[in-house]
Amino acid sequence: MATEGDSELRKRVTEPDEKPEQIVPSSEIDSDDDRLPEQSIEQRTKEIPQGTDQEPSFLHTLLSPLPPRWRNWVIRGIFTWLMIGLFCLIIYIGPLALIFTTLLVQVWCFKEIINIGYSVYRMHGLPWFRSLSWWFSITSNYFFYGESVADYFSVISSKSDIMRWLIAYHRFTSFTMYIIGFVWFVLSLKKKYYMRQFSLFAWTHVALLIVVSQSYFIIFNIFHGMIWFIVPVSMIVINDVMAYMFGFFLGKTPLIQLSPKKTWEGFIGGGISTILLGMILSYVLCQYPYFVCPMEYSEAEDALKYACDASPIFRPQEYSLPETLANFSALLGWRKTVTMYPFVFHSVALSLFSSVIGPFGGFFASGFKRAFKIKDFGDVIPGHGGMMDRFDCQYLMATFVTVYINTFISETSPQKLLQKVYMLKPEQQLQLYNMLQDSLIARGILQP
Amino acid sequence: MATEGDSELRKRVTEPDEKPEQIVPSSEIDSDDDRLPEQSIEQRTKEIPQGTDQEPSFLHTLLSPLPPRWRNWVIRGIFTWLMIGLFCLIIYIGPLALIFTTLLVQVWCFKEIINIGYSVYRMHGLPWFRSLSWWFSITSNYFFYGESVADYFSVISSKSDIMRWLIAYHRFTSFTMYIIGFVWFVLSLKKKYYMRQFSLFAWTHVALLIVVSQSYFIIFNIFHGMIWFIVPVSMIVINDVMAYMFGFFLGKTPLIQLSPKKTWEGFIGGGISTILLGMILSYVLCQYPYFVCPMEYSEAEDALKYACDASPIFRPQEYSLPETLANFSALLGWRKTVTMYPFVFHSVALSLFSSVIGPFGGFFASGFKRAFKIKDFGDVIPGHGGMMDRFDCQYLMATFVTVYINTFISETSPQKLLQKVYMLKPEQQLQLYNMLQDSLIARGILQP
Repeated sequence: MATEGDSELRKRVTEPDEKPEQIVPSSEIDSDDDRLPEQSIEQRTKEIPQGTDQEPSFLHTLLSPLPPRWRNWVIRGIFTWLMIGLFCLIIYIGPLALIFTTLLVQVWCFKEIINIGYSVYRMHGLPWFRSLSWWFSITSNYFFYGESVADYFSVISSKSDIMRWLIAYHRFTSFTMYIIGFVWFVLSLKKKYYMRQFSLFAWTHVALLIVVSQSYFIIFNIFHGMIWFIVPVSMIVINDVMAYMFGFFLGKTPLIQLSPKKTWEGFIGGGISTILLGMILSYVLCQYPYFVCPMEYSEAEDALKYACDASPIFRPQEYSLPETLANFSALLGWRKTVTMYPFVFHSVALSLFSSVIGPFGGFFASGFKRAFKIKDFGDVIPGHGGMMDRFDCQYLMATFVTVYINTFISETSPQKLLQKVYMLKPEQQLQLYNMLQDSLIARGILQP
Repeated sequence: MATEGDSELRKRVTEPDEKPEQIVPSSEIDSDDDRLPEQSIEQRTKEIPQGTDQEPSFLHTLLSPLPPRWRNWVIRGIFTWLMIGLFCLIIYIGPLALIFTTLLVQVWCFKEIINIGYSVYRMHGLPWFRSLSWWFSITSNYFFYGESVADYFSVISSKSDIMRWLIAYHRFTSFTMYIIGFVWFVLSLKKKYYMRQFSLFAWTHVALLIVVSQSYFIIFNIFHGMIWFIVPVSMIVINDVMAYMFGFFLGKTPLIQLSPKKTWEGFIGGGISTILLGMILSYVLCQYPYFVCPMEYSEAEDALKYACDASPIFRPQEYSLPETLANFSALLGWRKTVTMYPFVFHSVALSLFSSVIGPFGGFFASGFKRAFKIKDFGDVIPGHGGMMDRFDCQYLMATFVTVYINTFISETSPQKLLQKVYMLKPEQQLQLYNMLQDSLIARGILQP
């Protein structure tokens, strides 16, 4: 197991965010294991995905006159805008595209984490490891996505017999799938590999815990209205970009040992920008039903509905200004109140989380990369590294938003509860009806 | 990371179930890490809890004339009966005692797993590791137990303001606690320890996933009636004991490489015994409301209720015998039908799981012990080893029972749903009432 000991990188791995052009020379990396003499250290280090700084070749030619620091800045910038554009396009297509994208990103992130595990433990010739990881991934995705579908699409899904069966036996099927994986794992145990197999079993489970549960929460948020997805994701991006900008131009005071290039200037500048830009973005989005309406299936139109009576937090409300400010406002002939969407105030809570706690997701990922001596999780996005490098800060955010909605926003609606009542047998529905009637009359809410 | 390589135990670790008197000589265990010369191999191996075969001293004197194989058999037997007695006592005291015991066992198991992790990774001087593990354990227990309380005791708990607040903000509090742990972990990262810290982070999370979620499921089962706890737990014990007996007296054909002393004879004998004894036990327990009634709080008596209209699966039903058997029965002057509790048939499904899949929990634990070169998880129960050694097969079982109840048994009752309706605002309750009325009339269930 972990025998890192004093084999810490002698030469510090450079922070991928800042100088990705400098790859750690593999000869500088100490080996953990001296018992595989047939493999040179270089060979083994190469197996761990290091994230190349690949540049599309036309860009390379175009940018070659620039000094490396600027060249990377430009590439990173281009791909930042490309990603933002893609993000907007997906939002334009609609929530289902968003959910599908979430699934893709999640699978990709899982792949990156598993690849690292695979290389770190040098599992060559180990039977079944990859298949098992994917089996567990399919199982947990089936379970989590199925739960969402059962919750939100009971109307559509109860139309076909197969779907009804799948929903009725959803948990049983998922559990059976897990048990198959579990038994398979136990049967695949091989004497020489016990410890690595158990370590990778843990690795797979933690990766799934992080990746799949998060994507489940993201979908939960999208179901409550796309604004609950777009605002938090944008906040993390804004915070990332603004912290990078502030750090790049003003950064002086180091923030944390783990990410030596992160500065207090970037942290604070990023935080303030996130709150302000987050409020503006929220204010804009609040005006469109497309963004604020929860995802609902309209039986009449047999399609997703993009219109609704907006929940009160998306309806403009009058707030009276504090005393002194109100007097000052009156002096200028302005109103003593301000009209605002309550959601804009909620957005401040989200901003605070995304700029104070969000970066810890990044620090965690940094530490992880240090621990396993990798530079990036992958190289799928030029200038940015792997998918996980870009989404590391997003992960805690989705959970926060879900918990936030659950605690402060979401209320059980009579409609939703009625759906559950309809699941009862007719005589039970009647029984509930009578009990409710008695109780309402007893409490004087209903006239007998 | 895992540098087990060819350092597999040269001398096989003996199966704890069969010959626990033979401790692996620590000098036989290869070292994983040659970079800690100041510690001898013996010293380090000693740190991993090996599970002593401690015998209470009076027993030692009493049993010294016996050959070791028999001595251990007797000690194991005595403590098996002691545990069964304790188990019955706790059931006699009631479900709350059972829930409390579950919590204790779970905390103990977590402690055992964490201790092993602590020793395996030799985290001496590593800041905060133990505190962090316990913090995560408290967090997840708070979360899971709180969810149960919120679900099942909403009546009691809504009586006090503090409880109401705790329930309203339950998920938010739990998440905040988790975030504190997460940030604390990131801040505790220390350069020389990165890899071990991340490995132990994973270790803690997997341990919690296994231990806490299971205990949550166990509580869920108890809430549905103690029979859902007693029968499955007994089945595992019966299967364990009977497989051991069959193996001890008849065992010839080895079953699986991982547990060399497990035999096909034990496996099959155990399975058949479990089905038969499980049916008998179920038949007996079905007759007592104390065992079959779900846990409910009676507002009138301000106490737990132990009486109920038993669910149909606990009410005797007539089943007609198959043709040939019926004819034979008629020939003997017997009835052509048989009266049985449907639960007895359900018990066969539980038996099958506990005797076919249950042992894989044990194989998993065996493999884990091999991987980390420990004999037992601890030494808290003489003749049996640690708490985890005794409960390893129980773990999958609780999940199976929960899923089983969820899929095949539990139906939303009108009463339960009405509880949720009462959580709505009065005007919403009225709205739901009217909508339900319209729907019932439209479907001809209610006369206008």
